[in-house]
Amino acid sequence: MKVIIDGEVRTLKAAWYEDGEVKLIDQRELPDKIKIFSAKNSDDIAYAIKNMVVRGAPAIGVTAAYGLAMASKNGEDMNKAKEKIRATRPTAYDLFKAIRYMEVNGYDMNAARRYAMEIEGRSKKIGELGNELIRNGAKILTHCNAGALAVLDWGTALSPMRIAHNEGKNIFVFVDETRPRLQGAKLTAWELAQEGIDHAIIADNAAGFYMRRKEIDLVIVGADRIASNGDFANKIGTYEKAVLAKVNGIPFYVAAPGSTFDFSIRSGDEIPIEERDENEVLEINGIRIGPNESHSKNPAFDVTPNEYVTGFITEYGIFKPNELNKLKDLMDKDLFMNIK
Amino acid sequence: MKVIIDGEVRTLKAAWYEDGEVKLIDQRELPDKIKIFSAKNSDDIAYAIKNMVVRGAPAIGVTAAYGLAMASKNGEDMNKAKEKIRATRPTAYDLFKAIRYMEVNGYDMNAARRYAMEIEGRSKKIGELGNELIRNGAKILTHCNAGALAVLDWGTALSPMRIAHNEGKNIFVFVDETRPRLQGAKLTAWELAQEGIDHAIIADNAAGFYMRRKEIDLVIVGADRIASNGDFANKIGTYEKAVLAKVNGIPFYVAAPGSTFDFSIRSGDEIPIEERDENEVLEINGIRIGPNESHSKNPAFDVTPNEYVTGFITEYGIFKPNELNKLKDLMDKDLFMNIK
Repeated sequence: MKVIIDGEVRTLKAAWYEDGEVKLIDQRELPDKIKIFSAKNSDDIAYAIKNMVVRGAPAIGVTAAYGLAMASKNGEDMNKAKEKIRATRPTAYDLFKAIRYMEVNGYDMNAARRYAMEIEGRSKKIGELGNELIRNGAKILTHCNAGALAVLDWGTALSPMRIAHNEGKNIFVFVDETRPRLQGAKLTAWELAQEGIDHAIIADNAAGFYMRRKEIDLVIVGADRIASNGDFANKIGTYEKAVLAKVNGIPFYVAAPGSTFDFSIRSGDEIPIEERDENEVLEINGIRIGPNESHSKNPAFDVTPNEYVTGFITEYGIFKPNELNKLKDLMDKDLFMNIK
Repeated sequence: MKVIIDGEVRTLKAAWYEDGEVKLIDQRELPDKIKIFSAKNSDDIAYAIKNMVVRGAPAIGVTAAYGLAMASKNGEDMNKAKEKIRATRPTAYDLFKAIRYMEVNGYDMNAARRYAMEIEGRSKKIGELGNELIRNGAKILTHCNAGALAVLDWGTALSPMRIAHNEGKNIFVFVDETRPRLQGAKLTAWELAQEGIDHAIIADNAAGFYMRRKEIDLVIVGADRIASNGDFANKIGTYEKAVLAKVNGIPFYVAAPGSTFDFSIRSGDEIPIEERDENEVLEINGIRIGPNESHSKNPAFDVTPNEYVTGFITEYGIFKPNELNKLKDLMDKDLFMNIK
């Protein structure tokens, strides 16, 4: 992804392997600082995923793949390393897909590099296909960060927007700030600013207002896990935006690579939803917002039923929720994705 | 309202007149500090309304009434004073109702006291009627602050909850934090904590999640202006919650006194929506959340169409949106409310 440091344009990925360490852009520090987090062992990898140094389903998968290969090179007990990394976060499917891929491939570093390369190439393909949905002048809403930071490069939901912008289309992005962790305001807005894509950060509460005013033409979001029937989990609040898009007749697309589809579950009811620390809601920048007596509830994801999805933008094509059997057939024929 | 200061229970109102000054609980300082703001002239009143020292439609009305009476006592030019106060905020109807009431009553301090007393009594009546909708064990969602702070005492949306709690009903309140200004987390949670009512602050994004899980039985919100057809303006995000309540089969009530109903307009399309400073979104507690290059859009209110309203809880009874002609008849017969 394009990163401007001290006025100079550089290219960075969300995660890479270098000099025996897994390097991650520390996403907790953005947009204020571009800081690199170095993971030296599986403990560091587990810490980075759990504490959201790295986040976004495909990027978590890549980090796990590199982390397991590094652990293996360093002679760690691989069962322990694997279980530690598996236990970090329950919702995103890519994590489990990447662990299985590395098991099948003997925790080999070249296999991890191949995994990362595949994810990156597929996210670009998602952008090329999704770009077809974006007309010149389009106003697009996105939620949370499904950008290059969430993948490695390009992004899922942001990949079509990057490519539309690169092709010279004039687009405007409404960025839900995405409480509680503000990944929209902090990460998506930062990526769009680096690319020079016109945008505005809005309170999550304002998305419905602009949809009802017909000032939003299209919604594109990412996903953490997609079930066989097209129900999908994504960042808390996605369900609200999906319902509002439908009520207002606005197309609602989910952009995700094959690695996010979990064909082992029938519906979204089977997706475990992570509940995170209540202080993610009660404190912002370390300052408490509510009374000391108050508690909070903090589900990190919600499930959006398939009826709200216009289509899934994948590297294999764009599919309606009732066409996911076709996607499954294509994935079964794809040697990289067909890991049992 | 019940306020606990240094462990002692005291009773405070959101606004009152004392020693030649209009006193306001400074709502910008809660829940950290209970600070009283003293307005000495119409400039101070206009500042307090515009900058949200006091907010909430009925409380703005009471502040304007006291403010005009004070300005008159002090010999201010009343046309200037009135236009200054009128120009503060465009959406809440109570402001315009209170100004008209004071014009008709010659800016008399006793009239202002009567206005305040009426609003307080009516908010209690709203609570008594709304309480009938709350079963023991109910889980209720509210948005923003439509509590005692927004009225004077009791509240609109919170008044039924206060009375249900006082009657010994076991209730639980989901409090939308209500970005950008966090009136849910800062004000509603504070009021509920003072009263000892069980509650949790949630990110606005999480309301739909709990509705879909059937963990919310009832939604009650306040209003800033209600049109003849039952469309209503309220804090940004209300429309989102109303749509989600309907989709999930959850009753959605709007609690407001007669002073919030604007029978001079036919629909919500005629309600002016205030756009506030973009830094209300971009900064939290004075700390910037997004990149320096990013802008924001910040509509303070949205309009919810009548089809999403189960009923309006007023001091005259509970009315469906298509029954508001009955409410208008009752208001026309009410000497206090019938100000042309």
